[in-house]
Amino acid sequence: MTGGLGFIGSNLALQLVSEGAEVTILDSYIENTGAHFNNISSIKKSVKLIISDIGDSHACSECIQKADVIFNLAGATSHLDSMSAPLIDLQANVTSQLAFLEAVRKLNPTVRIVFGSTRQIYGKPQYLPVDENHPLVPVDVNGIHKLSAELYHQLFDTVYGLKSTIVRLTNTYGPRMRIKDARQTFLGLWIHKVLKDETIEVWGGEQLRDFSFVDDTVEALLLLGQHKDSIGMVYNVGGDEVLSLREIAECLVSMCGMGKISTHPFPEERRRIDIGDYYADSSRLRQSTGWKAKVSFVQGVEKTAEFYKKYLHEYCQ
Amino acid sequence: MTGGLGFIGSNLALQLVSEGAEVTILDSYIENTGAHFNNISSIKKSVKLIISDIGDSHACSECIQKADVIFNLAGATSHLDSMSAPLIDLQANVTSQLAFLEAVRKLNPTVRIVFGSTRQIYGKPQYLPVDENHPLVPVDVNGIHKLSAELYHQLFDTVYGLKSTIVRLTNTYGPRMRIKDARQTFLGLWIHKVLKDETIEVWGGEQLRDFSFVDDTVEALLLLGQHKDSIGMVYNVGGDEVLSLREIAECLVSMCGMGKISTHPFPEERRRIDIGDYYADSSRLRQSTGWKAKVSFVQGVEKTAEFYKKYLHEYCQ
Repeated sequence: MTGGLGFIGSNLALQLVSEGAEVTILDSYIENTGAHFNNISSIKKSVKLIISDIGDSHACSECIQKADVIFNLAGATSHLDSMSAPLIDLQANVTSQLAFLEAVRKLNPTVRIVFGSTRQIYGKPQYLPVDENHPLVPVDVNGIHKLSAELYHQLFDTVYGLKSTIVRLTNTYGPRMRIKDARQTFLGLWIHKVLKDETIEVWGGEQLRDFSFVDDTVEALLLLGQHKDSIGMVYNVGGDEVLSLREIAECLVSMCGMGKISTHPFPEERRRIDIGDYYADSSRLRQSTGWKAKVSFVQGVEKTAEFYKKYLHEYCQ
Repeated sequence: MTGGLGFIGSNLALQLVSEGAEVTILDSYIENTGAHFNNISSIKKSVKLIISDIGDSHACSECIQKADVIFNLAGATSHLDSMSAPLIDLQANVTSQLAFLEAVRKLNPTVRIVFGSTRQIYGKPQYLPVDENHPLVPVDVNGIHKLSAELYHQLFDTVYGLKSTIVRLTNTYGPRMRIKDARQTFLGLWIHKVLKDETIEVWGGEQLRDFSFVDDTVEALLLLGQHKDSIGMVYNVGGDEVLSLREIAECLVSMCGMGKISTHPFPEERRRIDIGDYYADSSRLRQSTGWKAKVSFVQGVEKTAEFYKKYLHEYCQ
């Protein structure tokens, strides 16, 4: 698995270990990603950990050769960072991915791959809910780069016979997410602020979003990794509930019994890259695999708040 | 202008100089591109030449600052090279372009840019003729990379106010094209073989293609560079004539009075990346600018053959 020290990767690793799988984690452990050693503290004796850029084929060759399934979740996620330092985002999301796939197609060309992509690649929705056929018009550098990585996976399928599945993730949240700042959705930062009894700043507030609790996301990844019909396919993983930013803020404050909300008009200069409302149509995933989101937003926030009440200090140093 | 030692760039530079424009050429002059010093031998005293990667902002800053219009034509074009050495194609078509655009948006954010893209990004046509709304499903690494560079241009328009126009070129041919090998369309290599009285190998032969003689392509670039309504837009530049590979081969041999043709069945292993028939719909360009292809395929082949009869040795060392 790549990116296994990160938010979704570590939750997936925990689940795989609990099911008795042999897990190797490949992670560059670089700044500003979701990577955190505490994410795997409970399974560190049960997994093999390699700290390396995934583009370093020397460091990665053995685990590539031995893998039955590769969950390819490494990458930079911050769209603001991708605009201020686009070449760093390029290195993480494109150059390293291309070098990794080159190694995979040479060393283990028929391996099963599940690639973690993002809703960023759709850009501003032209219709709602957004299904997998929606045009791809990314509105930030991160979206352009994740699109390239998707296209590499699909091309390598066609030309070299890799067996990959693309998963376009929406706002995923839950224990082990990055809450220090907004690099993994605004929700992480909001949880952080509420748990410190600070004020959440809501810009606009009417924008609609859907959410996927990480256990549901992990279940989708596991189902797709075993599902032969998903080879060469693209799947949205969204949530069933659609909420406005204001509703989300109110839910957080009321669930935690802490924090405050201040609302501001949406800044004009951010409208150019704002995507407005977004929520995904995940019916392809449901129909293909029987997947269903099991955790409601209220339950998910409760579990997340419970985790960070316990570990806030460790994750926000 | 970037890529000004190359095939299309040098023809554009010749035209610009003849119209009295002040021209700076930025070219990395690296192997396996179309760059050739002979391409600009007749204007070398009239242009400023900077040999540098376009991603080197130190070398490029002065000419970026002074430019009124940037014709951004640098890049690797070979789809076979992009498959065998994808990271080199990434560097040339993506990393350098991103660094270049970062410099442009900082140093000269309102400059006019015309970016030379390619039909490769459409992949296998889903309908014919292919217009600009055709889905983008590149079937090689080069196509994925040129798509990324297009998306950077469009994003930088939206976010930073760059004024760019995307031009998707079809098979362009004419004097100064690379004929040493097939890195710039198969037609270059065919002309080379015919002029050496060798045999052209035609695989399949029924596939349809359109062509644009370089003078027509240059006129399209110049018209779009002056045309305000083309800012933020994408244009195909195709030819009016559609010919099969066999017809093209026969035309070459009969026009030059040399060379032979051998026909072979299309190799099965190449079908996976073969795009079948392709020809572009250029009506958007015609309607917006009044552009019209002026040079027929027969006339264009005659001009090209005349040029290479004279300079074959210089271009094929």
